Amino acid sequence: MRLLNSISPFTGEVQFEPVAESSVADVDTAVARSLTAGKAWSRLEFKERARALRAIADAVDDDSASLAELAHQETALGIDRLVGEIARTTFQLRLFAEELESGRLLATDIDEALAGLPPVGHPRLVRRYVALGPVAVFGAGNFPFAFGQLGGDTVSALAAGCTVVVKDHPGHPQLAMTLSALARTALTSAGFDADVLQNVRGMGAGTALVAHPSVQAGAFTGSQKAGRALFDIATSRPNPIPFYGELGSMNPVFITQAALASRGEELSTELATSLTMGRGQLCTKPSVIFVPDDQAFIDGLVQALSGVSPGQLLSPTSLERYVQGVAGVASVSGVTEVIPTAAKPDLSVAPGLLTTTLENFVERSQELLEECFGPVGLVVLCGSDADFDAGMSLLEGALVATIHAVPETDSDLARHLVEELSNIAGRVVVNGWPTGLAVTPWQHHGGPYPASTSVLHTSVGSQAMMRFVRPVVIQNVSDEQWPGLL
Amino acid sequence: MRLLNSISPFTGEVQFEPVAESSVADVDTAVARSLTAGKAWSRLEFKERARALRAIADAVDDDSASLAELAHQETALGIDRLVGEIARTTFQLRLFAEELESGRLLATDIDEALAGLPPVGHPRLVRRYVALGPVAVFGAGNFPFAFGQLGGDTVSALAAGCTVVVKDHPGHPQLAMTLSALARTALTSAGFDADVLQNVRGMGAGTALVAHPSVQAGAFTGSQKAGRALFDIATSRPNPIPFYGELGSMNPVFITQAALASRGEELSTELATSLTMGRGQLCTKPSVIFVPDDQAFIDGLVQALSGVSPGQLLSPTSLERYVQGVAGVASVSGVTEVIPTAAKPDLSVAPGLLTTTLENFVERSQELLEECFGPVGLVVLCGSDADFDAGMSLLEGALVATIHAVPETDSDLARHLVEELSNIAGRVVVNGWPTGLAVTPWQHHGGPYPASTSVLHTSVGSQAMMRFVRPVVIQNVSDEQWPGLL
Repeated sequence: MRLLNSISPFTGEVQFEPVAESSVADVDTAVARSLTAGKAWSRLEFKERARALRAIADAVDDDSASLAELAHQETALGIDRLVGEIARTTFQLRLFAEELESGRLLATDIDEALAGLPPVGHPRLVRRYVALGPVAVFGAGNFPFAFGQLGGDTVSALAAGCTVVVKDHPGHPQLAMTLSALARTALTSAGFDADVLQNVRGMGAGTALVAHPSVQAGAFTGSQKAGRALFDIATSRPNPIPFYGELGSMNPVFITQAALASRGEELSTELATSLTMGRGQLCTKPSVIFVPDDQAFIDGLVQALSGVSPGQLLSPTSLERYVQGVAGVASVSGVTEVIPTAAKPDLSVAPGLLTTTLENFVERSQELLEECFGPVGLVVLCGSDADFDAGMSLLEGALVATIHAVPETDSDLARHLVEELSNIAGRVVVNGWPTGLAVTPWQHHGGPYPASTSVLHTSVGSQAMMRFVRPVVIQNVSDEQWPGLL
Repeated sequence: MRLLNSISPFTGEVQFEPVAESSVADVDTAVARSLTAGKAWSRLEFKERARALRAIADAVDDDSASLAELAHQETALGIDRLVGEIARTTFQLRLFAEELESGRLLATDIDEALAGLPPVGHPRLVRRYVALGPVAVFGAGNFPFAFGQLGGDTVSALAAGCTVVVKDHPGHPQLAMTLSALARTALTSAGFDADVLQNVRGMGAGTALVAHPSVQAGAFTGSQKAGRALFDIATSRPNPIPFYGELGSMNPVFITQAALASRGEELSTELATSLTMGRGQLCTKPSVIFVPDDQAFIDGLVQALSGVSPGQLLSPTSLERYVQGVAGVASVSGVTEVIPTAAKPDLSVAPGLLTTTLENFVERSQELLEECFGPVGLVVLCGSDADFDAGMSLLEGALVATIHAVPETDSDLARHLVEELSNIAGRVVVNGWPTGLAVTPWQHHGGPYPASTSVLHTSVGSQAMMRFVRPVVIQNVSDEQWPGLL
C-alpha cells in the first residue's frame, strides 16, 4: 500500500497523517458505485439537482474559515485569497443551480413534422440531452477550491447529470479529503445519494480511472505533461472518451505606444499586480508582455514588483521547478534578468522580471516561451507597434491574450490585434487584465492547444456543463400520441 | 507516381483513365493555399458565404442528370436513388445558406458588465465564434453526394468559415474530380476564391493531410478501421485536433408483441424496404432486429425480401467483404441462414436474412454484432418483450435505434425502451424506420463510439456547423468605447 503525504509549503516537512493511495480495485468499486448512483441522478428533475448543488454550496460556505485555514497550510495561498476563492466556488455552484432551475441550457429543441417528401418533408424530431455517465475529474493545485474537488469541472459535470469521481490533488490531500467528505455529507443530509461524488487518490488510480471502460469523460486542469499523458490514455482507449484538459498557457500582452504614453505608470503598477496575483501561479497570468522599449515603464514595473512581498509557492517541488524554469529562460542568450529570482531559506520567493528585445524573441521564441509557474514575467521590448505582428506569429495557443490601447488613436490597430489574437486565444481582454476570470453564463476559458485539449469547449462559465451531455433525437413521437413518453 | 483507378462495380474492370495520387508535396501546397484562401473566407459576411453555397448548389442541380449517370457507373447505386441524393445534397447546401442568412447559429452572446466585486461583478464579455481553419474531409463511398465531396462535412465546414481539403473517395475517383471541379468553377464564377475547396487523392495524401500542422480538424465517414486510424493520427499529433469520425453502427430494432399483433404484415414489408434501401449500404440500416418469435413475421419478411431485385454493391471489394462478413456471422453456432447470401456472376447479390434466438444472441453477441455492409439483417427471436433488456445490454454505441410499439398497450415499455436506447444511440425512432435520415435544423446523427468518435457532435443537420468553430470571448469592449471593433 502506497502512502500519500501532505508536505508543508512552509517547511518542506510532512504534515498530518499520511493517507493510503487507492488501488485499482478501489477505482473499480468507485466507478461501479458511480454507475449505480448515476441511474437516479441522471434522471432527477433539474430543480432537484439544483437543490443538491445548493446544499453543497451552503455546507462549504458554513465551513469557509476552517477550510481556508486548512488550504493555506497545504498551499500557502493566503487566507484572504482562499476565502475569496471559496466565495467564487460557492457562487459557481449556485450559478449552475440557477442554470438548472431556468432550464435554459439543457432545453429540448423540436423540428415539428413537415408534410411532403424528403428532403423537404420529415417526421417530428425532438432533440434533448442525456448525461454522458461517470466523469473523472483531476483538479488543479493552484485553485484548491474553484478548480478543485468541488470546482468547475465537478460542478458542471454534476449539473449535467453525470456522476463524478475526483482524483485528489497530491498537493492538498487533507483538504481534498475534507472537501469530499463535506460534500458527501451535505448530499446525504439533503436526501441524495452521496456516491454521485466520490474520490480516489494516487497517480496509478488516476490513470486507471481514465482508462476505466465505464468512465465516459475526463476533465483536467494542470501541467502539460500530466494532462497530455491522460489525454493520450483517454483517446487511445478501445472506446475513446472526450478529455477536457487545460494544460497551461503563455498568455501574451500587447501594450501600444499610445497606451504607454497615456497611462504608462498605471500600466506598470497594474501589470505587477496581475503578474503576482496568487504568487503568479495562475493559468491566466500575463506571461509574455510586448511593450515599446521604454525605460520609465521598466523602472515603474521594477518598483511595483519590488513592493510585492515574497511568499511560498504551492509546494517545495513547485518552488524548485519554478526557480529552475526561470533560470532556464534567464540563461537564454539576449535575456536580461532585471530582477533575479532566487528561493529564500524559508522557501519563499520574491517576484522576478526578465526582458529581451523583439529581435531576440523572434530568433529564440521556442526557448523563451517556457511557462514558469510563479511570479515572473518576460517583457519583450519592441521598437514600435508594428513589431507586434512578428511576435504574435510565434505564439502558441493561449487561454487569454491582452491588449492595452487607446480608442482615439488605436482603433485600426486594436481591431487588427483582436482579430489576430482571436486565432490564438480563447479570450481577448482589452484595457483590462487577464487574471480575475469572471464566472458568468457566457464566459469562455479554453483555447487552441496547449491551452486546451478540446478547443471547442470551455471549462469556466455555464457552457462548461455542455461538455458532459450529448444530444439524442427522438423521432416521430408527439405528446398527443405518446402522452408522458418524452 | 502512384495511380488511382476507377473500377466498375458491374464488371470489376478498370474504367476511365487512371488519375495520379497526390504526393506529400501536393498536400503541403493544398494546405498552404487553403490557409491563404481562409484569410478572406473566414471573415466574409455570412450572407456572402451563403451566396457561395447557393452557387455550388445551383451548379450541382444544373448537372444533376449527368452527375447521377457518372455516379451510377462508379457506385451502381441506381439513377433514381442518385438523383434523389443529389436533391438532398443541394437541399443541404441551401439549408446551411439559410442558417448563415438567419445568423442564428453563429450568433454573438453577451454578458453585459455587472457592477460590484467578483465573483458577482464582472466586465462586459462578448462571446463570438471563429472558424477553426483548414478542415480535412473524408467522404463516404455509399453516399457519393450527400456525404461526399460536397456533402454535409464539406458544406458545414465551409459554412462555418473554414476552408476544406477533401481526400477523394477511391470508390468514385471520376465523380470526386468532377464534383470538385464543378464546385470550384461555380465558386470562381460567383467571385469567390476557388481554393476554399480543394481535393487530394490517395491514402498517403489522406494521412499526410490529417497530420499536417496547419489542418485544424478532420471529418470522416467510413469504415471503423480507416476512421480509427485517422482518429489516432489526429489525436496523437503534437497539437491534437478534433476528429469527427462516423465509423459504422449496428442499429437495433425492437418490435413489441403488441406491435407485431396489430401490424405484423406491414412491419415485415417495411423492414424489408428499410433493410435493402441503397442495397443495405446505409449506416442507418436496421442491422439487428429483436422481435417476438413468430413464424408469420419471418415468412412475411422472407417474401418481401425475395421480391427485392439483386444488385451490385459499391465495388467488387465491397461485395467480397460483404459476402465474407455474412458468411462469418452465418457460421456462428445457433444462426440460421434463412435466405443464404451468395454473389452472382454479374457481381450482384440478392438480399439475405439470418436469424438466431435471444439466448444465442446473449451468449455470442460479440461474434454476431459484426456490421455487414449490404442487404442483410440479423433477426433475434425473443420469447417476450421482457427479453429486450438482455439484448439491449449487449449492444455497442449506435447511430440510431428503432422501436415499434402500440401507444395503448406499450406506453410503459416504450418509455423504458426510449430511455435505455438513448444511452446507446444518437437517435431513437418510434414507429418509423431508421433509414431516410432527415436533414433539419435539429437533427442529430452521431452516437457513442463506434457510431461516432466525437460523441457530442452531429454530422447531419444545422448543428454540424458548430463542429468547425470555437468560441472566443472579447472582454471589456463596448460599441460606444470602441466603435467598429466588434
